[in-house]
Amino acid sequence: MEIKRRKTRQINVGGVTVGGGAPVRVQSMTNTETADADATIKQVRKLVKAGCELVRIGVTDKASVRALKKIIAVSSVPIIADVHFNPKLAIDSFNAGAAGVRINPGNISEENITQIAREAGKRGVAIRVGVNAGSLQKSLLKKYGHPTPEALAESALGAVRLIATAGCENIKVSVKASSAGATIDSYRLLSQQTDLPLHIGVTEAGPLLSGTVKSSVGLGILLAEGIGDTMRVSLTTDPVQEVMVAKEILSSLGLLAKIEIISCPTCARTETDLIELVEDVEEALAKDFWPPIKVAIMGCVVNGPGEAREADIGVACGKGRGVLFRFGKPVKNVEEDDYFEELMKELVTIKKNWRERI
Amino acid sequence: MEIKRRKTRQINVGGVTVGGGAPVRVQSMTNTETADADATIKQVRKLVKAGCELVRIGVTDKASVRALKKIIAVSSVPIIADVHFNPKLAIDSFNAGAAGVRINPGNISEENITQIAREAGKRGVAIRVGVNAGSLQKSLLKKYGHPTPEALAESALGAVRLIATAGCENIKVSVKASSAGATIDSYRLLSQQTDLPLHIGVTEAGPLLSGTVKSSVGLGILLAEGIGDTMRVSLTTDPVQEVMVAKEILSSLGLLAKIEIISCPTCARTETDLIELVEDVEEALAKDFWPPIKVAIMGCVVNGPGEAREADIGVACGKGRGVLFRFGKPVKNVEEDDYFEELMKELVTIKKNWRERI
Repeated sequence: MEIKRRKTRQINVGGVTVGGGAPVRVQSMTNTETADADATIKQVRKLVKAGCELVRIGVTDKASVRALKKIIAVSSVPIIADVHFNPKLAIDSFNAGAAGVRINPGNISEENITQIAREAGKRGVAIRVGVNAGSLQKSLLKKYGHPTPEALAESALGAVRLIATAGCENIKVSVKASSAGATIDSYRLLSQQTDLPLHIGVTEAGPLLSGTVKSSVGLGILLAEGIGDTMRVSLTTDPVQEVMVAKEILSSLGLLAKIEIISCPTCARTETDLIELVEDVEEALAKDFWPPIKVAIMGCVVNGPGEAREADIGVACGKGRGVLFRFGKPVKNVEEDDYFEELMKELVTIKKNWRERI
Repeated sequence: MEIKRRKTRQINVGGVTVGGGAPVRVQSMTNTETADADATIKQVRKLVKAGCELVRIGVTDKASVRALKKIIAVSSVPIIADVHFNPKLAIDSFNAGAAGVRINPGNISEENITQIAREAGKRGVAIRVGVNAGSLQKSLLKKYGHPTPEALAESALGAVRLIATAGCENIKVSVKASSAGATIDSYRLLSQQTDLPLHIGVTEAGPLLSGTVKSSVGLGILLAEGIGDTMRVSLTTDPVQEVMVAKEILSSLGLLAKIEIISCPTCARTETDLIELVEDVEEALAKDFWPPIKVAIMGCVVNGPGEAREADIGVACGKGRGVLFRFGKPVKNVEEDDYFEELMKELVTIKKNWRERI
């Protein structure tokens, strides 16, 4: 499947390009108390290690602004301040070194948006207009009855006009809803009305598994249509998982090159403990950076050899022993007890030689 | 988002309609040893309880045929036999009472397909032509070089012609690949070439989380385009999870009415242990059947009241206490310690009165 990405303007968020052909940037947000700088720095590092390219941090008071400064001083990725209600916190965040701010037109007045935009324009920092179906301004809720796609887009584009008029050009836009369908409808509409880069996400998607499904369906459909320049998966769990899910979504659509495990669901034909083997390999791979190797771990002779043949490295497990495949060719028999070690040994070798291969 | 489902012929699999406007049917497959009838019956029951409508069981030898008979005798849903290589096992499975058989044209000869189809036609049972990129017949692999969408569709439609000619009309078709992109391409092509109902799935999608993402993206995109009459999510884990993920995918697209938790990802603004609360509610809900109630569990005042207002029941948690919303209206303040109990109490009441509401 080929994806034609929609042409958007490119903006710069603290050195990270967004839109205009740049890779889809993965974002997440800390859930520590911001004022606890140490805890927040620790979480930022974990997020970055997992592949997060932009980290958003809630800024709710003066104590969090003070901490923000410390966090930004040591962060290897741009930090975006999430500000609601109070425009002063946005400007304080710019002064603390934030690469951007996310504002919500549902809870900041037009006057205050203009004020923030003037300061952002002077400094060349970015603003995300982050509309959310759960916090739409009352006038639009009254006009449309519900947070419809039209209402979300109108809210976003109203704020965009104010910001551009005030002299800030570094703008990205989001119109998140908590259902996949409403999110898709809103972004489809918005993408027809602006060429600004879009930050996509299903908001409040829920717990890990159901939230992952909702986000994968909603964001997967948008990305397949070429919509989305940066993304956040919102899950009620450790934000590191948000980054992992975002990367899996991009990888599944060929928008990110990452290591991939192909493994069969096991059935009556499986004669080895495949679930454990796959979990062990997955855990080992999570500990390190890997080039986009395709690993096939298959439990029987039906699809095993076929999948292993299409993968970079694969094992087709039979009864008590299996066949190891390297770049599509069977290379040797492996005893059941050695599956894990043999696979990891091969993976390390492939990794070492990866640069030469490409 | 409105989904226009593609018009397909309707078939009947042991009393369960598939295609032609029937709901998208959820399938899974046991991974117990089939010959162990007790273990397999236990797993079938778990799958059915989770919402599985058709259960597939691998039939690999005479012992599994004997067990199949026992399993079918007590199963509340139709059982489909998964047969490779040996046509006799398919016919034995029909005799054991299987509602259908899945055959793989990659490993059964044309002669044998015809033989199975004749027997299926006589009995009115169903055949799924289950093509898999990992086990395509050699002649097509040679012709196309790789398991391309064209190769998978050609394999499937060749078998369909043999089966129809032999007098069996109850046919569904699948063309699974292990990447979301290849799966989407294959089904898009296939859906233009036949009006038979399609069984969709990303094969060997992998471990729980990455496999869930791949399946949600791949099947979500297809379902949104109206493609898919029955589905299986293939994960290297407990098959009950496959059913849960399948139902979440359908629910996220409005193709299945089920209870839904909307919950925020938590951030610096959250002043309660929302992750634990959400997990507790999720766990409690999983134990029972619930009508499609929309539950919002929100951690702060930004989107909390807005989302809670759009839900059937919701709590917007502030510092130490929160506001409970019922059908969009705030009804009372709740202390932090009572969130879980108050929510569950409300849920039970809504459930009791659900029939009257609709």
